[in-house]
Amino acid sequence: MREGDKLTVTDGQGSFYECTLLQANPKQCLVDIQNCIEKPKGWGYNLRIAFAPTKQMERNEWFVEKAVEIGIDRFTPMLCHYSERREVKTERLEKIAVSAMKQSQRSYLPKIDELSQFEKVISEPFNGKKYIAHCYDLPKKQLAQHYKKDENAFFLIGPEGDFSQEEVEKAIATGFEPVTLGDSRLRTETACLVAIHTIHVINSLS
Amino acid sequence: MREGDKLTVTDGQGSFYECTLLQANPKQCLVDIQNCIEKPKGWGYNLRIAFAPTKQMERNEWFVEKAVEIGIDRFTPMLCHYSERREVKTERLEKIAVSAMKQSQRSYLPKIDELSQFEKVISEPFNGKKYIAHCYDLPKKQLAQHYKKDENAFFLIGPEGDFSQEEVEKAIATGFEPVTLGDSRLRTETACLVAIHTIHVINSLS
Repeated sequence: MREGDKLTVTDGQGSFYECTLLQANPKQCLVDIQNCIEKPKGWGYNLRIAFAPTKQMERNEWFVEKAVEIGIDRFTPMLCHYSERREVKTERLEKIAVSAMKQSQRSYLPKIDELSQFEKVISEPFNGKKYIAHCYDLPKKQLAQHYKKDENAFFLIGPEGDFSQEEVEKAIATGFEPVTLGDSRLRTETACLVAIHTIHVINSLS
Repeated sequence: MREGDKLTVTDGQGSFYECTLLQANPKQCLVDIQNCIEKPKGWGYNLRIAFAPTKQMERNEWFVEKAVEIGIDRFTPMLCHYSERREVKTERLEKIAVSAMKQSQRSYLPKIDELSQFEKVISEPFNGKKYIAHCYDLPKKQLAQHYKKDENAFFLIGPEGDFSQEEVEKAIATGFEPVTLGDSRLRTETACLVAIHTIHVINSLS
C-alpha cells in the first residue's frame, strides 16, 4: 500500500477504523482515522476453554483458527498429567488468531494464555458454568441438554490420553460439572470445537 | 500381528466383528469371526453435504476427518462456477475417512462421491430438507431456528469465492432453502463442519 491509500484496521476489541495511510513503513505506519465502526463480538456470554495441547502442533493451530472463526473469548493451553506436549509457543497461536480474525472479518481477538498447570487453571475464579469433558465411565450430563442460553461457559478438555482420574475428581471438587459431548470418541481438538459450537448453537435457537 | 491374535474388525456399515487371525498376510488376511456386535451409526437422520473443495487440499482432508468423527452420511465434492480446485482424489479422502472412523471407534463409514458438477448435484432427489448456505445479502433463514429434530438434511456449501448468483437461484428453484450459519464469515471447510454439527446439536436437545 502507498501513502494516501484507504484501509480499515481493527483494535481486536470490537472496533473497526476507516483510515488513510499517512506514512507507509513496513515496520510502523501512521494512519489518519476518519471513522470508527463499532462491531461487537457477536455473542453475549463469556466463552473460555482450557485444553491440553496435542502432540501434533498443527492440530492446536487448526483449533485456534476454527475457534476464532466460530467465536471464543479465551484460550488456556493447559499441562495435564497425561499431556504429550509439554510446551507451546503462544506467539505462533496468536499469529494464527489474528489471521483468522481478519479472514472472518471479525474485530474481536480472543485472549491466548501461556501454558498453565491443570491445578492452577481449575483454581481460577469463573463467573458461569464450568464443565469438564472426560471419557471415564462415570455419571455425566449431555452438554446440549444441560447448558442454558446466555450462561457463561468454561470448558476443560484433556489430552489424547484423557485426564487422570485424580484430575477429574479435583475438577469436580472445584465446581466443574462432568459432561459428554456425544457418543463418539473425539480427538482433543475436535472436542474443543464441538464444545464451543454447541454453546453457540443453543444460543442461536429462538 | 500374528496368527492366533485376537482383533476387532468393522465392515463400515454398523457392525464390529471380534475375530481370531488365521492367516497373517499384509496383503490379504484370513480371520475367524467369533462374535458380531451391532453398533448403529448413532443418529437417526440422513446427513449429506455437497461442498466445493478448497484450493488447499489439507483443508478438505481436515473437514473429512472432523465430519467422520462428528457424524455424517455422505460427502459430495462439487464443481462450482467459482471453484478454485477443479479436481479431487477421492481415494485420499476415503483413506482419511477410514482412519477417522477407526480413531473415533465408529463402525460406520460415510460415502464419498466423485467430484460432480453443481447442476448434477442439485438435480438429485433427496428425501428431506435441502439447504444452500451463501453470503449474498438476500433473505435467509437461521439454520438453527429453521431445522427441526429428526429431519434429513442436505447442505450445499460453496467455494471460497461463494456460489454465483445464478447457482443460488438454480438451487432455490430446485427446492434448496437459503440459510445462514451465523453472522461470521466462515471458511468453506468451517461452514461445512458448522452445518453438520448444528444438526447434531439440535437432535441432541431434550
